[in-house]
Amino acid sequence: MKKPLIEKLAIIGVGLMGGSLAMVLKQKGEVGEVVGMGRGLENLEKAMSLGIVDSYTQDLEKGVKGADVVVVATPVCSIAKVISKVQAHMKDGAIITDVGSVKGEIVREVEKILDDRLHFVGGHPIAGTEQSGAQAAFPSLYKGSRCIITPSDRTDEKALDRIKEMWQLAEAEVVVMDVDGHDKILAAISHLPHLVAYALVNTVDGIKDFNGSILKYSAGGFKDFTRIASSSPEMWRDICVMNRSAIIDMTDRYMVELGKIKTAMENNDFDSLFESFKKSKEARDSL
Amino acid sequence: MKKPLIEKLAIIGVGLMGGSLAMVLKQKGEVGEVVGMGRGLENLEKAMSLGIVDSYTQDLEKGVKGADVVVVATPVCSIAKVISKVQAHMKDGAIITDVGSVKGEIVREVEKILDDRLHFVGGHPIAGTEQSGAQAAFPSLYKGSRCIITPSDRTDEKALDRIKEMWQLAEAEVVVMDVDGHDKILAAISHLPHLVAYALVNTVDGIKDFNGSILKYSAGGFKDFTRIASSSPEMWRDICVMNRSAIIDMTDRYMVELGKIKTAMENNDFDSLFESFKKSKEARDSL
Repeated sequence: MKKPLIEKLAIIGVGLMGGSLAMVLKQKGEVGEVVGMGRGLENLEKAMSLGIVDSYTQDLEKGVKGADVVVVATPVCSIAKVISKVQAHMKDGAIITDVGSVKGEIVREVEKILDDRLHFVGGHPIAGTEQSGAQAAFPSLYKGSRCIITPSDRTDEKALDRIKEMWQLAEAEVVVMDVDGHDKILAAISHLPHLVAYALVNTVDGIKDFNGSILKYSAGGFKDFTRIASSSPEMWRDICVMNRSAIIDMTDRYMVELGKIKTAMENNDFDSLFESFKKSKEARDSL
Repeated sequence: MKKPLIEKLAIIGVGLMGGSLAMVLKQKGEVGEVVGMGRGLENLEKAMSLGIVDSYTQDLEKGVKGADVVVVATPVCSIAKVISKVQAHMKDGAIITDVGSVKGEIVREVEKILDDRLHFVGGHPIAGTEQSGAQAAFPSLYKGSRCIITPSDRTDEKALDRIKEMWQLAEAEVVVMDVDGHDKILAAISHLPHLVAYALVNTVDGIKDFNGSILKYSAGGFKDFTRIASSSPEMWRDICVMNRSAIIDMTDRYMVELGKIKTAMENNDFDSLFESFKKSKEARDSL
């Protein structure tokens, strides 16, 4: 039997992201043993019963012992704290990686506190569904998705290669870039759209002169469009904290674009409006 | 056999909206005969072969002859023109209605030119799918949707009741309101979201410093969110022409809301940000 890529894998936060990664690596025989960790006992028991993990513990310091790779799949604000807490208990040469949707703050914080005998590689698989928890995990989550890996000049080459290979085994297309590139792209394709959706729902909900909120008139289109406004306010506040400047910049750019549309309407310049809509449709249709 | 609600129904524009209405009324035996009209011969032949219409013609003046109810389901900018063209050929006391997603401009234009011997009732069933054409029509399109009817003080009571009944038979919930109420609500729940989506795609597509458009990094969430940016630029330009002031007003309100979020981020006021997201999520979850 061939040697798996990772002998002992520790997953901190066995939810959709961490759980799906464990599942695909197990399915391919690329992991010897998976230890699941997290705060929710029920979720860990679920992960165990689904065969996502081989053992579990709520004691992070115990769980990381002997692990070759530790994947931190906890909320973005806690990633550096978790690493700070567990690193003294990890074995020499072990690799820590994460799946956080912000990279600059996390990589800078982690590199500030990381033990020299360990390696850290920042990562962000761009995948997900509306669901969360171990129950939501499935081995093909990452198939065909992109995973951005953000090494710094301090990143160990061998550790980087191993994490790249791990995501390739999960069938993600790995893209390597610097943290600022990642944070700008994510601000544009994910963080800004969430702010836009939250603001839109609040705008519509704020119009109360039709016997209560006019949201009741909304049809399928509005519901689909604003689905992401149902996302966790805690999680999105944290992302805004962690990727503040890129999101502010992207919001500025967006307000300029929307302002152009509004100005065209005010000036009765419906040709410009048409060109703007056409350009947008062409870009969207190309996805 | 009971008398149908409408002996002879003429549909101008046998697409998703007009075709689905004809189908449900036929299915319920509430229409004696349906004549389909429109510019596309192929679409009319399709409607005939699908049993949506009993006959068809590209000659509008001929098609409306003897009709008790004429439903104008053409693009918003052409509705008043179509009515102006066909009305002389309609029988006394006949009713004209429309399904346009803007009401103020249309109702005002039509009332300016309407023959005294005819009745007009403005209507807008809030339903639809991504599809268009007779092929896309299905009898349950309006089931559970809302249909807004916008009578003016010139509207005939009996004609109003008949159009209300027609939409109730299509299983829509009929809501009666004035044109300005309709146009404000639609600006909020439909027109603004389209501008927001067009602007968002243009913003993201405008960032070219990552080997071409960063749109390629977008995952499912962004695609779902921006699906409406694939809508017809012509149709949305026309809606902007027809509902200009309500859309400008709604865009202003929206920019204030988004501005609040941006200001909270600039001020590191993440508690306000959290409250704003939470309020939005609660409103969205209530849909």
